[in-house]
Amino acid sequence: MSFNSFGNLLKLTTYGESHGVAIGGVIDGFPAGVDINLDEIQQELDRRKPGQSKIVTQRKEPDTVEFLSGIFEGKTTGTSIGFVIKNTNQKSKDYNHNTNIYRPSHADFTYDQKYGLRDYRGGGRSSARETANWVVAGALAKQLISFISINAFTSSVGDIFINKPYQKLDFSSTEKNIVRCPDEEVAEKMISKIKEIRKAGDTIGGTITCVAQNIPVGLGEPIFQKLHAELGKAMLSINAVKGFEFGSGFCGAKMKGSEHNDIFNEDGSTTTNLSGGIQGGISNGMDIYFRVAFKPVATIMSSQQTINSENKITEITGKGRHDPCVVPRAVPIVEAMTALVLADYYLINKTRQI
Amino acid sequence: MSFNSFGNLLKLTTYGESHGVAIGGVIDGFPAGVDINLDEIQQELDRRKPGQSKIVTQRKEPDTVEFLSGIFEGKTTGTSIGFVIKNTNQKSKDYNHNTNIYRPSHADFTYDQKYGLRDYRGGGRSSARETANWVVAGALAKQLISFISINAFTSSVGDIFINKPYQKLDFSSTEKNIVRCPDEEVAEKMISKIKEIRKAGDTIGGTITCVAQNIPVGLGEPIFQKLHAELGKAMLSINAVKGFEFGSGFCGAKMKGSEHNDIFNEDGSTTTNLSGGIQGGISNGMDIYFRVAFKPVATIMSSQQTINSENKITEITGKGRHDPCVVPRAVPIVEAMTALVLADYYLINKTRQI
Amino acid sequence: MSFNSFGNLLKLTTYGESHGVAIGGVIDGFPAGVDINLDEIQQELDRRKPGQSKIVTQRKEPDTVEFLSGIFEGKTTGTSIGFVIKNTNQKSKDYNHNTNIYRPSHADFTYDQKYGLRDYRGGGRSSARETANWVVAGALAKQLISFISINAFTSSVGDIFINKPYQKLDFSSTEKNIVRCPDEEVAEKMISKIKEIRKAGDTIGGTITCVAQNIPVGLGEPIFQKLHAELGKAMLSINAVKGFEFGSGFCGAKMKGSEHNDIFNEDGSTTTNLSGGIQGGISNGMDIYFRVAFKPVATIMSSQQTINSENKITEITGKGRHDPCVVPRAVPIVEAMTALVLADYYLINKTRQI
Amino acid sequence: MSFNSFGNLLKLTTYGESHGVAIGGVIDGFPAGVDINLDEIQQELDRRKPGQSKIVTQRKEPDTVEFLSGIFEGKTTGTSIGFVIKNTNQKSKDYNHNTNIYRPSHADFTYDQKYGLRDYRGGGRSSARETANWVVAGALAKQLISFISINAFTSSVGDIFINKPYQKLDFSSTEKNIVRCPDEEVAEKMISKIKEIRKAGDTIGGTITCVAQNIPVGLGEPIFQKLHAELGKAMLSINAVKGFEFGSGFCGAKMKGSEHNDIFNEDGSTTTNLSGGIQGGISNGMDIYFRVAFKPVATIMSSQQTINSENKITEITGKGRHDPCVVPRAVPIVEAMTALVLADYYLINKTRQI
Repeated sequence: MSFNSFGNLLKLTTYGESHGVAIGGVIDGFPAGVDINLDEIQQELDRRKPGQSKIVTQRKEPDTVEFLSGIFEGKTTGTSIGFVIKNTNQKSKDYNHNTNIYRPSHADFTYDQKYGLRDYRGGGRSSARETANWVVAGALAKQLISFISINAFTSSVGDIFINKPYQKLDFSSTEKNIVRCPDEEVAEKMISKIKEIRKAGDTIGGTITCVAQNIPVGLGEPIFQKLHAELGKAMLSINAVKGFEFGSGFCGAKMKGSEHNDIFNEDGSTTTNLSGGIQGGISNGMDIYFRVAFKPVATIMSSQQTINSENKITEITGKGRHDPCVVPRAVPIVEAMTALVLADYYLINKTRQI
Repeated sequence: MSFNSFGNLLKLTTYGESHGVAIGGVIDGFPAGVDINLDEIQQELDRRKPGQSKIVTQRKEPDTVEFLSGIFEGKTTGTSIGFVIKNTNQKSKDYNHNTNIYRPSHADFTYDQKYGLRDYRGGGRSSARETANWVVAGALAKQLISFISINAFTSSVGDIFINKPYQKLDFSSTEKNIVRCPDEEVAEKMISKIKEIRKAGDTIGGTITCVAQNIPVGLGEPIFQKLHAELGKAMLSINAVKGFEFGSGFCGAKMKGSEHNDIFNEDGSTTTNLSGGIQGGISNGMDIYFRVAFKPVATIMSSQQTINSENKITEITGKGRHDPCVVPRAVPIVEAMTALVLADYYLINKTRQI
Repeated sequence: MSFNSFGNLLKLTTYGESHGVAIGGVIDGFPAGVDINLDEIQQELDRRKPGQSKIVTQRKEPDTVEFLSGIFEGKTTGTSIGFVIKNTNQKSKDYNHNTNIYRPSHADFTYDQKYGLRDYRGGGRSSARETANWVVAGALAKQLISFISINAFTSSVGDIFINKPYQKLDFSSTEKNIVRCPDEEVAEKMISKIKEIRKAGDTIGGTITCVAQNIPVGLGEPIFQKLHAELGKAMLSINAVKGFEFGSGFCGAKMKGSEHNDIFNEDGSTTTNLSGGIQGGISNGMDIYFRVAFKPVATIMSSQQTINSENKITEITGKGRHDPCVVPRAVPIVEAMTALVLADYYLINKTRQI
Repeated sequence: MSFNSFGNLLKLTTYGESHGVAIGGVIDGFPAGVDINLDEIQQELDRRKPGQSKIVTQRKEPDTVEFLSGIFEGKTTGTSIGFVIKNTNQKSKDYNHNTNIYRPSHADFTYDQKYGLRDYRGGGRSSARETANWVVAGALAKQLISFISINAFTSSVGDIFINKPYQKLDFSSTEKNIVRCPDEEVAEKMISKIKEIRKAGDTIGGTITCVAQNIPVGLGEPIFQKLHAELGKAMLSINAVKGFEFGSGFCGAKMKGSEHNDIFNEDGSTTTNLSGGIQGGISNGMDIYFRVAFKPVATIMSSQQTINSENKITEITGKGRHDPCVVPRAVPIVEAMTALVLADYYLINKTRQI
């Protein structure tokens, strides 16, 4: 029973409020003897950090991770890995107006009701700042399963979608634009859309697609640790996520069995992959791909009616520095959580045959 | 680390193969002193059982649950509740032709690869027969949180959808037709569709919508036990599920913040409910609703190319008695898993304030 | 969070009351491909069963285990292993007089206080009958780690002790007498002692020593899964246990470092083994040995003052068929729990280096 | 599955090596709304810290805890509580001579064998420095269950024992002497003994007794979360512990049932308390008391033969600043772990009746 832990054998436990002293975590179960490249971890964190481009929040947070244990002379030692990311740029005054106001579609109301009190500075524990911890852990996990490649990208912003199957995309292009869409033409439109939305003081939703390749056959544990179920839980844990589908997803629900079945090739691969690389909760060696829906950021720059903690009607207008669209910065988060799941299940699978 | 367990404080652990001696489970953490109506549990099981109508598999299995412990003189005692459902109608010969053949889009291949061997009779452990266990546990959970109402229903079959918001539906109509769709007119079309598909030896996918009402505020645990993330994992654990969305879901990803935010009423309720009753992973007292996508059943009655365990190309034609559409029988399963999650989180929430 | 589960990767979950329909359990995480000898499992169970000799309870229970899943064509399949032991000889009337009486030093009072009600037939869930489940699971675990030998034996009954170090004992003699003491001379005295105690309508405590040999180096997980801590928890879970010590144990607390340190031989073994085969929570390849203290059985055949559930003073005299000394029948239980711990940690250790 | 976590609903997860940057942890599941006295936490830590008296190690470490999250305006918020204790006085050079030498009866050998490498500075992760984290968490737990009083004390050093039952001791005297023995006369002898041992360059073992009072009836969860089993595991997790007994303990194994049974008073209390406050794994409201055996510290100041990582025989002489007897500083650790267990089970018990 862990409220703030994710994973089974490889387990991340986190803490931290957006405007507290620091955020951080403990990674438990990481095997010994893995060479760790600390620069790559920081690079992943930089992909998530605020202020990196014009279409994300302009908050400046260096988000520097410091490792406190578990790595010695460049290698993991098998002991728990503690890390901390100091909060250096908490402009709490930006949030002081929210002390007892419940922002619409934020977690202020539910935290107050559940706990009887809350850290009202920024989102506190409910802030997506927490996901910086996940990116650190995911970056470590990537180094554990470096034979697997994980590529997430922005597949839609509002009603602007990539119209190609992922096989036609060049993932090396994803980082070449600020919206993290590997289709350059679509990327342009997405960026314009976000700029326009931002100018209007509004926000917009979007989707991220993630593709994991070179997956060993056999990852995933029936009955209640199915690989896609754990991936789904991982994605649904990310702030603002409203939906998850893998393989054929919701489209598959419209199809016939004769259309949907993936026919085997002689080598055990399949001619199609509507299954999304997972059968019966276990990876079959084909690409795993899934799509994650993000709602529009709840903080908008126009006035909205709301209530305060005394149940009085009041007004609120977003201040502070917020993202007009969460999706570009969420790409490394999606990858990180995918890596955590796959690394965990990779370890578990070492124990399933004698 | 539990492969065959679901839940935290209220935990279901299961066992059983489709063609073994029995399936069953243990429910741990169920509080003492709850009056148990055994008939209602059997009724839930009857909603899931094969052979109940013309649009489901014609296998006849009585699926009678026997409780072995934990209930004494009509009440739970706080000890673990063991139960068993005997397998009475395993026509293994229907499946003998599958001994070493990997059925397309089934779990035969992945189980064999993962474990080095498998119980090849029927789906073995990967069979949806397992979900009978879940329905038993869910039915008990419903009696624990009887103040919450949980209503799932078939919301689409293939491309036939209910076109009304759930608020316009009368859930008491769901059980009045064999497809479990509370919109009678749409139900007719769905039933015709399934019959037609069945006649063609094919299968079809669909979606189930579930609505949970009268939810106390405060259920759900940030950061990694968010209520919707656990509901998502629960649904994605059900056989054939390819997607999960709650509240605005994938549609929400196309919206603007100014459209999507749920504005508070003075009493803490909201004028709209695009959030789907959950903020920051915690229930806000509004209806929780979500939608689950099911792929078409993989066993079809026409010939398909496939391979066997020696990686030789062969042919397979579905025999045995299978569902042309899994959705009608999955309705009680969706409800059961929802009840398990909500009951678990209800118990957890008793410990979050002093 | 599992109340009725033991273990981490290899996990036993149990249910059952002494006078209910059946007891049983689910073994999760057992690897696939292990050859299972069902006869050996039943033999272990027979070592624990009532009525096997004159110095144990004369209840006759066949205690036949039936496996329901997870074993196919003689091998484990990697899926959960369900099993059941039917209760065939519950003479509930022997216990009817206890309906609302709290037997001294039994769990009647605490169960009633904790849960508000209890199954008052026999010990219900608190009965040591539960440990039959553990013996089944332990017997399976023994087959998983058959390269390890585990030998428990009765090391004292009352004030009659074996006065030799375990290295001087022949473990193959343990089963040659009914008290399960490998020192034949001491065994005779123990048996006489128990007979005498029984005649007096009284009961007596004792200790069991367990030695595990051929342990791979490296089992055990710091910080909170130390091998000896988990063994201790396992032993303290057995009914009537009051203490646990390993290696030098309580004697070690009187010693000096210069006496207590185990000096290394060139091959990594040690000249002495006061450590009991574990350093820093991790096995070092030397024998693991520990000692477990059992209190005298609480049910005695003479009259004792007690109270009932209305807090009225009353009298009670043991009826039914009870053990005068629990230790002989607890020997296989100690071995079973040891096997469960070692098998679990053996699996875990497969994941600790890459 | 957590290697570095302790507890169920209230869960401590830790990290840190003795000579790394810092040690620390995350406390998960702590309820919201508890007033936290930070000074009291630091005071507990000061009871454990090195250099506090002449009979403990003379290392000077301030051991200042810094909280990073989860406490806001003096109260817990229900979110995870992160904390850190910086390592300020790591004289690694004291330990450099140990780089590849395996100290006798230390964990150097087992860590190297298990993980293939280790942080050889000091004990690394195996150092008792880790227990400072436990004291922090235990001090918080004490504030959660402030209605319970927990008193541990040194009950023996070598062969010098307190000869009174704990009921005759005044626990407020425990902190009045540096060996933490509430019997002043015995304390003097213990202190002399330790000084003498220290002068000889040797070390000595001892025992700690712990008494928990004002325990609510009903804490503890059968079958595998028995209160005494979890307390035992907690104690056996402490560095250097070799044994645990509660209530009558190993003495109880010599007794008859007619002597051992605790007879009820009309109010549900018992006239004697050989049970040690726990029946069937559940607290009965009487005092819980237990005894913990600590081996002598393995680092001694005289020369010992040993081996290095190349399996070559060599010599080692303890350098650095070590405790001649671990027991005085372990008293607050025993209390802390007791508090963690009791607080955890207090929370769990809130969910066991409806």
